[in-house]
Amino acid sequence: MKVAIIFGSKSDKEIMRGAVTALEEIGIEYKASILSAHRVPEKLLEVIRQVEEEDFQCIIAGAGLAAHLPGVIASHSILPVIGVPINVALGGQDSLYSIVQMPKGVPVATVGINNSYNAGILAAQILSIKYPKIKDSLNKYRKDMKEKFINDNKEEVEW
Amino acid sequence: MKVAIIFGSKSDKEIMRGAVTALEEIGIEYKASILSAHRVPEKLLEVIRQVEEEDFQCIIAGAGLAAHLPGVIASHSILPVIGVPINVALGGQDSLYSIVQMPKGVPVATVGINNSYNAGILAAQILSIKYPKIKDSLNKYRKDMKEKFINDNKEEVEW
Amino acid sequence: MKVAIIFGSKSDKEIMRGAVTALEEIGIEYKASILSAHRVPEKLLEVIRQVEEEDFQCIIAGAGLAAHLPGVIASHSILPVIGVPINVALGGQDSLYSIVQMPKGVPVATVGINNSYNAGILAAQILSIKYPKIKDSLNKYRKDMKEKFINDNKEEVEW
Amino acid sequence: MKVAIIFGSKSDKEIMRGAVTALEEIGIEYKASILSAHRVPEKLLEVIRQVEEEDFQCIIAGAGLAAHLPGVIASHSILPVIGVPINVALGGQDSLYSIVQMPKGVPVATVGINNSYNAGILAAQILSIKYPKIKDSLNKYRKDMKEKFINDNKEEVEW
Amino acid sequence: MKVAIIFGSKSDKEIMRGAVTALEEIGIEYKASILSAHRVPEKLLEVIRQVEEEDFQCIIAGAGLAAHLPGVIASHSILPVIGVPINVALGGQDSLYSIVQMPKGVPVATVGINNSYNAGILAAQILSIKYPKIKDSLNKYRKDMKEKFINDNKEEVEW
Amino acid sequence: MKVAIIFGSKSDKEIMRGAVTALEEIGIEYKASILSAHRVPEKLLEVIRQVEEEDFQCIIAGAGLAAHLPGVIASHSILPVIGVPINVALGGQDSLYSIVQMPKGVPVATVGINNSYNAGILAAQILSIKYPKIKDSLNKYRKDMKEKFINDNKEEVEW
Amino acid sequence: MKVAIIFGSKSDKEIMRGAVTALEEIGIEYKASILSAHRVPEKLLEVIRQVEEEDFQCIIAGAGLAAHLPGVIASHSILPVIGVPINVALGGQDSLYSIVQMPKGVPVATVGINNSYNAGILAAQILSIKYPKIKDSLNKYRKDMKEKFINDNKEEVEW
Amino acid sequence: MKVAIIFGSKSDKEIMRGAVTALEEIGIEYKASILSAHRVPEKLLEVIRQVEEEDFQCIIAGAGLAAHLPGVIASHSILPVIGVPINVALGGQDSLYSIVQMPKGVPVATVGINNSYNAGILAAQILSIKYPKIKDSLNKYRKDMKEKFINDNKEEVEW
Repeated sequence: MKVAIIFGSKSDKEIMRGAVTALEEIGIEYKASILSAHRVPEKLLEVIRQVEEEDFQCIIAGAGLAAHLPGVIASHSILPVIGVPINVALGGQDSLYSIVQMPKGVPVATVGINNSYNAGILAAQILSIKYPKIKDSLNKYRKDMKEKFINDNKEEVEW
Repeated sequence: MKVAIIFGSKSDKEIMRGAVTALEEIGIEYKASILSAHRVPEKLLEVIRQVEEEDFQCIIAGAGLAAHLPGVIASHSILPVIGVPINVALGGQDSLYSIVQMPKGVPVATVGINNSYNAGILAAQILSIKYPKIKDSLNKYRKDMKEKFINDNKEEVEW
Repeated sequence: MKVAIIFGSKSDKEIMRGAVTALEEIGIEYKASILSAHRVPEKLLEVIRQVEEEDFQCIIAGAGLAAHLPGVIASHSILPVIGVPINVALGGQDSLYSIVQMPKGVPVATVGINNSYNAGILAAQILSIKYPKIKDSLNKYRKDMKEKFINDNKEEVEW
Repeated sequence: MKVAIIFGSKSDKEIMRGAVTALEEIGIEYKASILSAHRVPEKLLEVIRQVEEEDFQCIIAGAGLAAHLPGVIASHSILPVIGVPINVALGGQDSLYSIVQMPKGVPVATVGINNSYNAGILAAQILSIKYPKIKDSLNKYRKDMKEKFINDNKEEVEW
Repeated sequence: MKVAIIFGSKSDKEIMRGAVTALEEIGIEYKASILSAHRVPEKLLEVIRQVEEEDFQCIIAGAGLAAHLPGVIASHSILPVIGVPINVALGGQDSLYSIVQMPKGVPVATVGINNSYNAGILAAQILSIKYPKIKDSLNKYRKDMKEKFINDNKEEVEW
Repeated sequence: MKVAIIFGSKSDKEIMRGAVTALEEIGIEYKASILSAHRVPEKLLEVIRQVEEEDFQCIIAGAGLAAHLPGVIASHSILPVIGVPINVALGGQDSLYSIVQMPKGVPVATVGINNSYNAGILAAQILSIKYPKIKDSLNKYRKDMKEKFINDNKEEVEW
Repeated sequence: MKVAIIFGSKSDKEIMRGAVTALEEIGIEYKASILSAHRVPEKLLEVIRQVEEEDFQCIIAGAGLAAHLPGVIASHSILPVIGVPINVALGGQDSLYSIVQMPKGVPVATVGINNSYNAGILAAQILSIKYPKIKDSLNKYRKDMKEKFINDNKEEVEW
Repeated sequence: MKVAIIFGSKSDKEIMRGAVTALEEIGIEYKASILSAHRVPEKLLEVIRQVEEEDFQCIIAGAGLAAHLPGVIASHSILPVIGVPINVALGGQDSLYSIVQMPKGVPVATVGINNSYNAGILAAQILSIKYPKIKDSLNKYRKDMKEKFINDNKEEVEW
């Protein structure tokens, strides 16, 4: 029950940290690689093959600009690929479109701009249909989220 | 191994047919309901409870305009929710944003505008991590897709 | 004659302060709660029920991103709901669309991006059709606004 | 308990019919005028004065392009003004922005693009805080809407 | 041969300074007033009447957000009105649309976002068809602009 | 007192007809040429020279896509240039930006997308500062517009 | 001196015909293949290898939606790649961004939305730096274009 | 084998430095001029003539706002023109559209917003079809880019 995290450049690391945080909160192993669809396409294929051979069951891919990385990965694997549009220009509209508007037959499960945390939670939700332990973790996560939210906001708002 | 399909109005049926087509091609059972997050919110909760109690493992939700349906479902279930933005106005930009820009902790796996077919394939990819039979179907689907593509396009393009 | 103010996170408080300022200027009581349509949906319903049972007559709801909060409230109440799109990403275009493009039958009275002050004034205008005292306050408010504007700008502009 | 409907040109009539339909469904009187903020500004002021002197309690204003009509009305009256952005160009983005982005102190309660029906329902919601009969109608309207929705969609979706 | 400059708030003064600079460079008198179409509509009409009675021949109006000021002025005067969209939100797209998309019969001569300097030059170009002196100044201005440009950039670019 | 109308292709003629209509309504002579900034740049310069030598006092230029025509004309003449963005793609957003966002010192007086009629009226307003006869025509035009509007809309709206 | 034309689906053929027309007008050989970056990625690599081994010197690639095809080709070849964004959704904004916003080091020479004709001319311009015959053809093409334009438009425009 | 770099103002120099860096990395001579399509149109023509007479074989042109410079150059030369949209306003959307949406027959090879580095690489790719030495440099550049990328990212990502 492992998740592969792939992104295109060291400069995306801070944005992608959210995915790591989410996976650690739920208790899911991950392995992160920096790979570019355009700069090292052959290396990317190699890593996708490894990911499939080892026990990975979901891939999170983050990219900015003409963000081809998630789609290229999706074209080489039938594992569910979660795409994180990263805001480098145009408020992230370019990467959102480049990731979400995939052609018929090769989907990428897209989350919000810069929202890699949600990519981590979505990966957990996907794994949870197979692993009861992750389902339990997610249920606890939701319950804790609610309790924390209610607790944090139980005082009347002071202005 | 069933997928629930939920959308907001009969007028969305033609757009959502793609999901049905994809699930049938892969060989996955589904059940479709027309439900509105805004018009029948209590009924929606009821159906989400049913979906969780029965053997459903993934929910596809399509909506247009201020497309809250997928996000509202995601807030009531930890099953993976796949959102299909439907183009009713503004080229579908409004529904895309309303679906993909979910807050931290409650992701919706968004596919392209009007691209419910990809929602069906993504559902299959998600189920495939648990059901080897679906994995086999998907592998065959990809193989067939390639062969058909190459076959359809092997003649030189005539102008 | 009270107005309920609901928003999704402590981080929205500074943006929502404008509503409080406006209501205080007109002399309208309010009660503010932090609630999330996605994180604590059941708690939200509870609060909406309270708001209806107590003497509240208008609800102001602010949210960013896929801003479902105002629309979800509107689907559970027939009180007029005023929506404030908060700019978290994309200049606030995502939250504007998620709030204003509501489906037939469930409107949200939307004001400008980050403009919670106008939500407060709009709430006052709505209440003023019932409460002559608020009508008087609003008339005075407009008169003062004009006088202050003219006074502030009566000197020739110095460059 | 009357609502004034004002719009800028005969060509907007079909779009604005929704407001009339909604008001008639709830049982609210209305009076519609075609008036232009730019072509007959003096006549517009005259009509706004009349609207205030007679028993009107809410104004619905629809306009396309650089849609100033709702905002100009709002600057001359403290009655709640509901703005309907009409799609003439750019998918209605121009009229949406021209209506919703009002400056501090002069709000327009904006509904969705071309969605004059929601303007009618919002007017009813506003009036309902004063008139118990309208509150009853609205509660019945919501109940009927739900029942009709459930009734229309109780059969399984046939593909 | 005077130009009236009107804008909506002291906070727009720095953006509008460009118009003053341009008019001074060409040698055209101007008078600037701060006036709001929404806050002091009656005062605005008064000033427009004055502008027409005195020797003004062109009006420059700057505004942000739902920028109605230039269009409202244009609806009350047949003097050419030059509109300056000011970027307060959305990169200025809202004010650009609110100014440029005027309905048939009531044009506003729109310049670039925040580009009040060009409004000043455009005013000069308009006046130049009547006043040979301004035509001469403009011809000199263009000539100087060219010479200065060539002079400033005659050295090879150093990297 | 003549206005030059220049546009880039026969396919723009129907859109540009509005300018002709407006000029004829006010009673202003015009001469229309089809010229392209990109296909016949030298010919364009020649025509601009002619326009300046003859008695033209304003230029209306319409173009679509990367609409350089109005700006290129403006860079070769100090006559006021009125730009008409023509919708060929992207709802006309591309041509609007290409026309209105001119750099410091070389303005184009931009009107609404496809709204060449307003270009004609704006040309008349510009000429009116010099020619009392046109001022009279414009005053009559405005008066007639108002009367016609009021006349056309004096009956209550029938639904 | 050959140009490879690659596009993603038979449904793009009509849009891509422009490239063929342009290349034939200039007198350049071409070979067109239908290939998808996402459906047949291995086949695509094979064809790119062939293109490089044979005498091709420029690649034109057209695609819609999340248009990865031109960028993926560019990542596997140092031949100049010309990208044609095809309008399938959102007016072509999604494919434009997916093609033009390539990361550092892997450019795609992007032309206008649906404007494959310009891709053909750009290919000719690129080849012309090597082949004097193509330079001559292009010079003649430009000259003919000018003459035809002037000829077609020498009559005064009739309204 | 030289490349001309032209841009509109000293303020664009930092953005355009990328082109210089890329050309130097590949080993291509260049000459940079600051020239404006709107301020010094005659000087621009002069420089284009020089560029054609000397041994230049490609032109890189950068501009912001209504970015006419690349298109105007393209209309006066059949050399391949590479356009760099510079972000001055609206995230660079205005300059992107003004550069890429060129009319039939006069293409500009557009690269990403502010991405002048890619303009340099694209120039090298274009020259490489003629100069084997540049082809070798580019092949080495790609190989080095890959090796550097793999080297920089061979360590597991540390969080």
